[in-house]
Amino acid sequence: MREKVTICEVGPRDGLQMAKSRMETAAKIRWIKAIAAAGVPEIEVGSFVPPRVIPAMADTEEIVRQSVQIPGLFVVALVPNLRGAQAAYAAGAHRITIPVSVSEGHSRSNLNRTPMEQVGEVRGIVPWVREQPRRMEIEAACSTAFGCSIDGVVPTEKVVEVATGLAETGVDSVSLCDTVGYGNPSQIKEVVRAVRAAIGDKVQRLHLHDTMGLGLANALAGLEEGIRKFDSSLAGLGGCPYAPGASGNIVTEDLVFMLESMGFDTGIDLQKLLAARRVLQESIPEEPVHGQVPKAGIPKTYRKAA
Amino acid sequence: MREKVTICEVGPRDGLQMAKSRMETAAKIRWIKAIAAAGVPEIEVGSFVPPRVIPAMADTEEIVRQSVQIPGLFVVALVPNLRGAQAAYAAGAHRITIPVSVSEGHSRSNLNRTPMEQVGEVRGIVPWVREQPRRMEIEAACSTAFGCSIDGVVPTEKVVEVATGLAETGVDSVSLCDTVGYGNPSQIKEVVRAVRAAIGDKVQRLHLHDTMGLGLANALAGLEEGIRKFDSSLAGLGGCPYAPGASGNIVTEDLVFMLESMGFDTGIDLQKLLAARRVLQESIPEEPVHGQVPKAGIPKTYRKAA
Repeated sequence: MREKVTICEVGPRDGLQMAKSRMETAAKIRWIKAIAAAGVPEIEVGSFVPPRVIPAMADTEEIVRQSVQIPGLFVVALVPNLRGAQAAYAAGAHRITIPVSVSEGHSRSNLNRTPMEQVGEVRGIVPWVREQPRRMEIEAACSTAFGCSIDGVVPTEKVVEVATGLAETGVDSVSLCDTVGYGNPSQIKEVVRAVRAAIGDKVQRLHLHDTMGLGLANALAGLEEGIRKFDSSLAGLGGCPYAPGASGNIVTEDLVFMLESMGFDTGIDLQKLLAARRVLQESIPEEPVHGQVPKAGIPKTYRKAA
Repeated sequence: MREKVTICEVGPRDGLQMAKSRMETAAKIRWIKAIAAAGVPEIEVGSFVPPRVIPAMADTEEIVRQSVQIPGLFVVALVPNLRGAQAAYAAGAHRITIPVSVSEGHSRSNLNRTPMEQVGEVRGIVPWVREQPRRMEIEAACSTAFGCSIDGVVPTEKVVEVATGLAETGVDSVSLCDTVGYGNPSQIKEVVRAVRAAIGDKVQRLHLHDTMGLGLANALAGLEEGIRKFDSSLAGLGGCPYAPGASGNIVTEDLVFMLESMGFDTGIDLQKLLAARRVLQESIPEEPVHGQVPKAGIPKTYRKAA
């Protein structure tokens, strides 16, 4: 039995919020269905933010409503506040992810709040969600946990402090996000260890960007620290509107190739994933795409060496 | 004191042999000087192969003669046979690297010999070199040690067999090359361990390609197995003319960023390395370049977090 690793595809949220091109609602649904058909177990399909702030996410309610109809798919939505959590719940989301920047600069720029004020926002969301008849998972995402393009170095103690505050609110899990892609493998290991020492197994997921080309090396570092959940983005779309210099997420196609080649079970069919990439490219052909496996093609050694 | 990692820049050899554009001798020397000025300790400057086979390497003798004049630079040349070794010695090379494919298909395609016939060629080269008055290092490079685009999977036992044969010839060191970039981190660790168990510290260097996007993750895997010498290529130039589907080497700029960020000492100034990249781009502006650090710029956190 191969060990499982769970990938959450964040392209429809983290990718499209930054894309120069706008994807129509029907095209988003086609794309999400193609990703799900490849066996990707979880998709972050959108974010409940004001349309004037991120116009590309204006149809998130409709996207969530349609996505939860896809058999077997676990549907995630980003929400910055209680109002967003309520909208995500009403639309049927299976999990919400609430961003909380560790660095002051990013927090103010992204949410116009201090990190601890945003921890307070999470503290208000959790009891409301727990009171609802349907169970909805709550994840808090520690943004800029490995560096900030505004504030620079983010000390590990600061990550531990914010993660601890978040764990105490009663969220189900805490993720660590290299929002701007400044992290390195040693740092990934150090921060994961320090946060786990503070909050135990509540730290589960890494969200990595490939700004400096270290994305998969950082994922490997996380794997070696026992992380078994990763966010990634088809074609490496993504970035952060409030983090100048950030570039795309780690590429789902390459991540799947690495994990499966190493003997992990992602449940994802790489051929079908490349088909989902073509659906994306047909919808917004002018959008730059990334990824080495799609360029080189799947080699004949794939899954044979392991 | 930071632990040292030695990078050998192979762009002028592995990169230019595959480049669509031809770089003039004077431009090569300008580029090599700029790389050396950035603190890169070793450069593989060319290969002694018949000009009709790889025209871009026709000026290797001149390049080696001029490169050995650069103060402090360790100059490496690739040689496929005794004649090449003699030419490299005459030009003043400090080390020769002799490629020996582990896979039959690549060996026949590249050298028109079986792997063991090429081990025999190395056996003929070593005593000749040892008889010369000047010391010249000899490295044997196990090509296609992690997969072959012709033969597919390359079994670890086969790598051990070839590496053992090479160690017995009396070469100074043996490197392991992911010529086509099919390797994954688990495999890197497994093969390094197996070869080290057979030949001890004679296995020193990894030569990695980024075909599937796993290059730096594979470098990290090697680091964790104690490897402290890496080949890489500025702007990720490279490939292999006899390995269809292979793409560029791991990017020197990104590798240096990773290593220095992790606290290793490469002796390389990243700003000056980006200047050397500009020298390359000015010489052959039409050649596609790779690398994330040059695109994103060096972040303000560089070397501050470690």
